[in-house]
Amino acid sequence: MPMNAAQWAELGQQLRVDSVRAAAAAGSGHPTSSMSAADLIAVLIAEHLRFDVGHPDDPNNDHVIFSKGHASPLEYAMLKAMGVLDDAELLTFRKFDSPLQGHPIPNLPMVDVATGSLGQGLPIGVGVALTAKRLDRLPYTVWVLCGDSELAEGSMWEAFEHASYAGLDNLVAILDINRLGQRGETMHGWDLRNYAGRIEANGWHAIEIDGHDVEAIDRAYAEAQATSDRPTAIIARTVKGKGVAAVENKNGFHGKPLDEPEAAVKELGGERDLHVDVAKPESHGSPHVFDAPGGSLPAYDVGDKVATRKAYGEALAVLGSMHADVVALDGEVGNSTYAEIFGEAHPDRYFEMFIAEQQMVATAVGMQVRRWRPFASTFAAFLSRAADFIRMAAVSRATLSLSGSHAGVSIGEDGPSQMAMEDLAFMRAVHSSAVIYPCDANQTAQLMGAMAEREGISYVRTTRAATPVIYGADDRFEIGGSHVVRASDNDEVLLVGAGITLHEALKAADALADDGIAARVVDCYSVKPVDVDGLREAAAAAGDRVVTVEDHWPEGGLGDAVLGAFADADERPRVIKLGVRDMPGSGKPDELLHAAGIDADAIASAARALVRGGVPV
Amino acid sequence: MPMNAAQWAELGQQLRVDSVRAAAAAGSGHPTSSMSAADLIAVLIAEHLRFDVGHPDDPNNDHVIFSKGHASPLEYAMLKAMGVLDDAELLTFRKFDSPLQGHPIPNLPMVDVATGSLGQGLPIGVGVALTAKRLDRLPYTVWVLCGDSELAEGSMWEAFEHASYAGLDNLVAILDINRLGQRGETMHGWDLRNYAGRIEANGWHAIEIDGHDVEAIDRAYAEAQATSDRPTAIIARTVKGKGVAAVENKNGFHGKPLDEPEAAVKELGGERDLHVDVAKPESHGSPHVFDAPGGSLPAYDVGDKVATRKAYGEALAVLGSMHADVVALDGEVGNSTYAEIFGEAHPDRYFEMFIAEQQMVATAVGMQVRRWRPFASTFAAFLSRAADFIRMAAVSRATLSLSGSHAGVSIGEDGPSQMAMEDLAFMRAVHSSAVIYPCDANQTAQLMGAMAEREGISYVRTTRAATPVIYGADDRFEIGGSHVVRASDNDEVLLVGAGITLHEALKAADALADDGIAARVVDCYSVKPVDVDGLREAAAAAGDRVVTVEDHWPEGGLGDAVLGAFADADERPRVIKLGVRDMPGSGKPDELLHAAGIDADAIASAARALVRGGVPV
Repeated sequence: MPMNAAQWAELGQQLRVDSVRAAAAAGSGHPTSSMSAADLIAVLIAEHLRFDVGHPDDPNNDHVIFSKGHASPLEYAMLKAMGVLDDAELLTFRKFDSPLQGHPIPNLPMVDVATGSLGQGLPIGVGVALTAKRLDRLPYTVWVLCGDSELAEGSMWEAFEHASYAGLDNLVAILDINRLGQRGETMHGWDLRNYAGRIEANGWHAIEIDGHDVEAIDRAYAEAQATSDRPTAIIARTVKGKGVAAVENKNGFHGKPLDEPEAAVKELGGERDLHVDVAKPESHGSPHVFDAPGGSLPAYDVGDKVATRKAYGEALAVLGSMHADVVALDGEVGNSTYAEIFGEAHPDRYFEMFIAEQQMVATAVGMQVRRWRPFASTFAAFLSRAADFIRMAAVSRATLSLSGSHAGVSIGEDGPSQMAMEDLAFMRAVHSSAVIYPCDANQTAQLMGAMAEREGISYVRTTRAATPVIYGADDRFEIGGSHVVRASDNDEVLLVGAGITLHEALKAADALADDGIAARVVDCYSVKPVDVDGLREAAAAAGDRVVTVEDHWPEGGLGDAVLGAFADADERPRVIKLGVRDMPGSGKPDELLHAAGIDADAIASAARALVRGGVPV
Repeated sequence: MPMNAAQWAELGQQLRVDSVRAAAAAGSGHPTSSMSAADLIAVLIAEHLRFDVGHPDDPNNDHVIFSKGHASPLEYAMLKAMGVLDDAELLTFRKFDSPLQGHPIPNLPMVDVATGSLGQGLPIGVGVALTAKRLDRLPYTVWVLCGDSELAEGSMWEAFEHASYAGLDNLVAILDINRLGQRGETMHGWDLRNYAGRIEANGWHAIEIDGHDVEAIDRAYAEAQATSDRPTAIIARTVKGKGVAAVENKNGFHGKPLDEPEAAVKELGGERDLHVDVAKPESHGSPHVFDAPGGSLPAYDVGDKVATRKAYGEALAVLGSMHADVVALDGEVGNSTYAEIFGEAHPDRYFEMFIAEQQMVATAVGMQVRRWRPFASTFAAFLSRAADFIRMAAVSRATLSLSGSHAGVSIGEDGPSQMAMEDLAFMRAVHSSAVIYPCDANQTAQLMGAMAEREGISYVRTTRAATPVIYGADDRFEIGGSHVVRASDNDEVLLVGAGITLHEALKAADALADDGIAARVVDCYSVKPVDVDGLREAAAAAGDRVVTVEDHWPEGGLGDAVLGAFADADERPRVIKLGVRDMPGSGKPDELLHAAGIDADAIASAARALVRGGVPV
C-alpha cells in the first residue's frame, strides 16, 4: 500500500527516533548525523527503492551504500522499518557480538560493503553501477548516501569523474549537506551551489533540494531515475540533529548519543512502528554470462628469459578464458603491468581506470559485491595510493586480486619514486591477504591459477626485468608453500630469496660452492602465509644458519616473515636479514642491487660470515 | 637582457633538444612528455620566474615544482639553461650516482621535493603557497607544472579545493594538456573546457591557451600574476613530442628515448646554447617569526589516567611555545587527536585540513620545504589514506612528524573501520622513519620533545583510552630506547609490550607472580629503531623466553621488530608473538582486547606455556 507524503514524514521521524534509541542503548554512535538524512532515506525506501527483502541476493535488487558509514544508526533503523531487523536487534547496536556494528560491515541484508572510512562508499558505488552496466547488464539502481565532510576526499572526485565518463545513469548520489563536520563547519557549509557546480562540471545532473521536504525528495528521486546518459546527484540541504532542539544545527554533538534520549524521542513524536513493504524489482533478468571457452595456463621453457609481469598478463588472459567471472582493471599502465594482454583477449571485461588507483580498487570492491572476480594492477609503488581502500576491502571481506609490478630497486633507472619497497610490509598487514612473490614465469602462472580460486585479498608482486625460467611448466606451487631450489646433504647455510633475489641467491650459492661452502636455497614465493614447516626443515638441514634477502626495505617483508616462522621453534637459526637500507637512486638494475647490498656478492658475503662464525658488521 | 618572442621559441626548442639528448644518453626517460611542456617552461624562466640562482635558499625565491616528475629531462634542460647544470652534467641523466635521477629528487637547486608519483606536486605546491601566505608571509609565487594524466588523481582535486579555500593567488598551476597518457588517450583528450569547467567550479581563475604560442603563454602568466584572491590555472593545449614528426601527437612513445635522436635534434633546429639570466626576486624580506615564549613539556602525576592522545595535544601546544617553527595540521578530527589544543594556543600556526589526508601530508611536506616543522595528525587508520604521500615524503628527504590516534581494537565500539592495525607495519617500512608508541602521558611528552628535533619522518601512535601514568615526569626516554618496567633477579620470562599492551603486560606479570612465575616487563616504546641491546639483555635475564604483544595485526609491527632484534644474536630466545589475528568488531575495549587474545589473560597464558615448556596451540 503506497504511503502519502505525511506518512513519509512520519517514517522519517521513526528513523530519527530509532537512531536516537539505538545510540542511547549503545552509549555511543552518531545519531545527529543520522537525523539529518532520515527523510532522504524514508522517501527512498517508501517509494523508489527496488529490493526484494525476502531475496536479498536477487541480482536485480537495487543497492544502497551508506558512504557516510557513521550514519549506521539510520541504516539499522531503515532495516528495521523494512522488516529486516526487529526492535530488540536494533537495541544491540555496537554491543560485542552484535551484527549491528559501529560502522556497517556486510553481515546484514542490503549491506554490501564496510564503510566508515569516509570517501569510499561513492567510489565503490561507481564500481557496482559499472558492474550493472557492463558486466551484469541488469537495470538495477545504485543509491549512495554521502556526507558533506567526505566530499573533501579526493577519492569522491575520482568517483564523480569516472561515473560520468562511464555514463552511469543508474547511479544516484544523495548528498546529505548538513553543514557540520566532526569539529565544526565544513569548508562550504550550506553553499549547495558550490557542490552542484563542481558536480555538474564533472558531467553529472545535479538537483538541489531541501532535504527535509519529502515531496521535493520524491520529485528528485523520480527525476534522477528519469535521467539518462549521466548520473544524478541530489544535493540536499539538511540539518544535523534535525528535530531535536537541544542538538539541531549545533556544533559539538557529533559522534555521541543524545544527553536526554527519552525527551528527544518525545520531541520527535514518540516511538512508531511503521513498516515499509519495499517494492520488488520489476526486472527478473539473469546476470550476463561471458564466453569462457576454457584454456590452460601458459607454459614457458626453462632457460628462457621472461618477466613475471609478462607472465601475469598472459596467465590473466587465460584465466579469463577459463573463468567467465574473471575481470581485469588497470591504472593506465597496462602496457607495463601487461594487464593489456587480458584487455586484448577480453575487451568487454577489461576496465581502464586511468591514474586513479583509489577508484580502481573501489571498482574492484564493487565488482566483487556482485560476485565477479576482479584482478587489479598497477605499479606496486602506486598501489600504496589505495592503501586505505585495500585496508577497508579487508573489513568488507572482499575477494579480489591485486598485482603490483616494478617492485624494488631492480627496476633501475626510473628511481625510487617508482620502486615499491614497502608493499610486502603493507600487504602482509592486510587481514585475509595472501602475498605472493614469484621468481619465474611458470611459477607466476601456477600461482595466479590459485589466486583465481582463493577467498580474500590476494597480492602478487611482479618484477620488471626478464628473469630466467627455472621451473618446468609441470612444477606445481601452492599459496603457503615454498620450494627448495638447491640442496645437498652437507649444506651449511640456507639462503632464502623470492622474486628477483631468488636468482641472486642462486648465483651466491654458486660462488659459495667455489669457496667450498654448500648452500641450500629456498624460494619463499609465498611471503604470506609463509611456509613455517618448510622453512624450519630447510634451516635445520643447513646448520641453522639463514640469510634472507629481499628487494624491499628491511622492515615488514620477507625477512620478517621468515623470522616469524622460526619465532617459537625449538631450533631457532641465526638469521642475517638483507634488504635495502639506504635510499636508492637511478642506475642499472645490477648496479642498484649491488649498491643496496642484496645481490649475489652481498648474499655470499653474509653466508660466509655466518658459516665462519662471525656476523658481518 | 630581456628576450623577445622569437627567442622564447628558440629557448623552447633548446629545451626540447636537450630533453631528447638527455634521454638518448640515458637510453631511457620521457622526452616526449618533456617536449610538450617546453614552451611553457621557456617563457616561465625567461620572463616570469623570480629566482636567485646564486642564492637558491633565498626565502624570497619563487618555487617551481614539476608535478609531472617524469618530465625530468625538461627540468634538467631548464636548469642547464639557467646555468645551474652544464652540458656534461645533463648527459649523466639517469646514470648511477648522477644527481640527475630518473624522476627529480631535492638534490639540485630549485628542486624542492621528489615527484614521480603522479598527483603529488600540486598538493605539495598548495602547501608551499600556503606557507608563503600564512607562515613565511613573503610574496613569492609557486609555479606547478602538471600533466593531464595526473588530473585523474583525486589528490589533485583536494589541492584545487584547498587552494581556493585558502585564497592562494600566489599559486599558478600550469596544465600541460598533451592528450596522451602512458598507453593512450586520457579521459578528456584535448577537451580543455572540461578541465577549465571543473577548475573554475573549484574557485580558480582558469586561462585556456595554445601551449605552443609563446606570446599567449606570456600573457597568461602575466594574467595569473595579476589575479588576486584566487589561484590561477593555465590550461595549455599542447602536443606530446612536439617538433619531431616521428613522435609528435602519436601514441606509443611514452617513457622511451627517441629512436633517432640525432635526426630529431636536427629537425628541432640543432643544438643551441641559450642562457637565461633568471630575474631575481624583488622582495628582500625575511620570513615571519612567530612568538615562542618558551615553556616546558607537560608533566603528569603517576597514577592519574590520561590518554596519550591528550598528552600529544598538550605537549604539542608546549612545543609550539618552545619552538617558533613548529606548526600543526589536522584532518578535521582535532577534538579526537587533541591537536586542537595546539590550535587554541597557536591559532596562526594551526591548519585545519578537513577530511583530506593526502592534502594534509602534502601540505606538511610543502611547509618543511621552507624549513617549518609540521606535526600532522588524524586517526592512525586514516593516515593510510596518505600512504603514497608518506612514501614519497621519504624520497623527498622530508622532515615531518605524524601522529595517528585511535590505534587498534582498544578503541572499542567504533569498530574495525576506525582501528589502525597496520600502521606500525607501514610506518616501519618508510625510509628515515622513527615509530614511537608510548604507553603513558609523561613518556608521550618526552618523546615528542625528541621528535621535534629529529630529522626524517617521525610517527607517534597514540591511544584513545585514558591509561594510567606509570612514569614520573622526570623519567627520560629517547627514540631508539626501551624501558625495563618490572624486573627481578629470578625472571623466567620477558613480556614485551608498547602503548596499550604495556599495561596488559603489567597486569599479566601480576597474575604470573601469583602463579610463582617472575616476569620481566619491557616497554618497547620505540618500535623503530628498536632497542636491540636492551631487548637482548632483557631476554637473557629472563630465561630467553619472550612474549610480545601488540594491538595490531601480527605482521610487520612490534613482534616483528623484536624478532629482528634477536635475528643474528648469539642467544635467540623463543618468542611467542601475540597480535590481532581475527577481524574484530564493535564492543567494549576490554572485551575486544580479550577476544583478540592480547589482554593480560592471553599474555599470562602464553608466558606460562613458555615457562612450563610447552608452546600454546
